[in-house]
Amino acid sequence: MQSEKQKNQTETEKNHLLKQISFIKEIDQLKYIQRKTRLFNSNRQENDAEHSWHLAMMALILAEHSDKPVDMLKVLKMVLIHDIVEIDAGDTFIYDTSKNHTNTQEELAAAKRIFGLLPEKQAEEFVEIWKEFEEGTSDEAKFARSMDRLEPLLQNISNKGGTWVEFNVDYRKVYEKKKAIKEGSAALWNYAENLINDSVKEGILKKNP
Amino acid sequence: MQSEKQKNQTETEKNHLLKQISFIKEIDQLKYIQRKTRLFNSNRQENDAEHSWHLAMMALILAEHSDKPVDMLKVLKMVLIHDIVEIDAGDTFIYDTSKNHTNTQEELAAAKRIFGLLPEKQAEEFVEIWKEFEEGTSDEAKFARSMDRLEPLLQNISNKGGTWVEFNVDYRKVYEKKKAIKEGSAALWNYAENLINDSVKEGILKKNP
Ligand SMILES: [Ca+2]
Repeated sequence: MQSEKQKNQTETEKNHLLKQISFIKEIDQLKYIQRKTRLFNSNRQENDAEHSWHLAMMALILAEHSDKPVDMLKVLKMVLIHDIVEIDAGDTFIYDTSKNHTNTQEELAAAKRIFGLLPEKQAEEFVEIWKEFEEGTSDEAKFARSMDRLEPLLQNISNKGGTWVEFNVDYRKVYEKKKAIKEGSAALWNYAENLINDSVKEGILKKNP
Repeated sequence: MQSEKQKNQTETEKNHLLKQISFIKEIDQLKYIQRKTRLFNSNRQENDAEHSWHLAMMALILAEHSDKPVDMLKVLKMVLIHDIVEIDAGDTFIYDTSKNHTNTQEELAAAKRIFGLLPEKQAEEFVEIWKEFEEGTSDEAKFARSMDRLEPLLQNISNKGGTWVEFNVDYRKVYEKKKAIKEGSAALWNYAENLINDSVKEGILKKNP
């Protein structure tokens, strides 16, 4: 026979599971959120779920280039969840000057609502991890953010300028945004900086005097 | 001035990076591989990248229900890469009786080619992790595989039977495949078994006498 304690544990587990399942269903919506950036050598826009998967793969593969030793499990949590707030807040294009991307009130409310579907402790953990990514000051956040900057750079180059050409973005702005890669990895920044300069030479990124 | 040793390290790092970037570009193709299963409450088929992201989220969220303590970083690696071989080998529908899904020669060759784009040690690591997932005997593989069975179950139920109805799959076959969830988690199997039985009652899963 089950003891009272065992019974309560089972009840808690069941209660947790139902909340977790509702969260798992909710985040399916990330697959419908279209980014501006297109897939490699493609005209098809990437969605946030595909993007998050690709960043997780990049973090795993490129770990050795991080300047600081990082807790890879935390980095993976960050990149896997970093865009979930966009289910409510929508994707903000990085070169959109009319909107400030950094940790808007709308995004914070979204984080609280969506992660709030989870059991309380888990909800708190994920809101904290999301905030840490947004703040970008910990070693894990720096490395995770460098992945988030590197992927669309590679994609745009594969698409002969991609969103740079499509939205008339110039070198200075690209350089300014991509510099975040340097915070996570000198080696990746060295590679990225060369790619940006080569893009100017190849005429797929304009550099106004 | 750089010592000879430093110079060699930098060269190795650069060499690694170029291989890693080519792998990162190659796996973009996972976003084009359509599964049979459709998104939640949707007519749109899921692709392998979205599926892999969703399994990674589920593993993070449902960890407490694993029967055995698992190395979550390894579980995440497994679910993130488990379908990459399908870039060469294609998606095999789980209820397709004409093809044996388990670790085909075609899939092994695919793993060797695709992970083989990476630096040697990394390639070996990922081929091993993929094999471990396919074998399904370690605690991490069992839990990872239970995620892979649970997601389409939830999706089919949200789609009034989904692929069960579309491909005329019956209870016995579904039950047989979903039992793998039990290997990873008694709690999740308890939940899943109830869902399967409810599906029969609701008439979205046929049960032949
Ligand atoms: Ca974003």
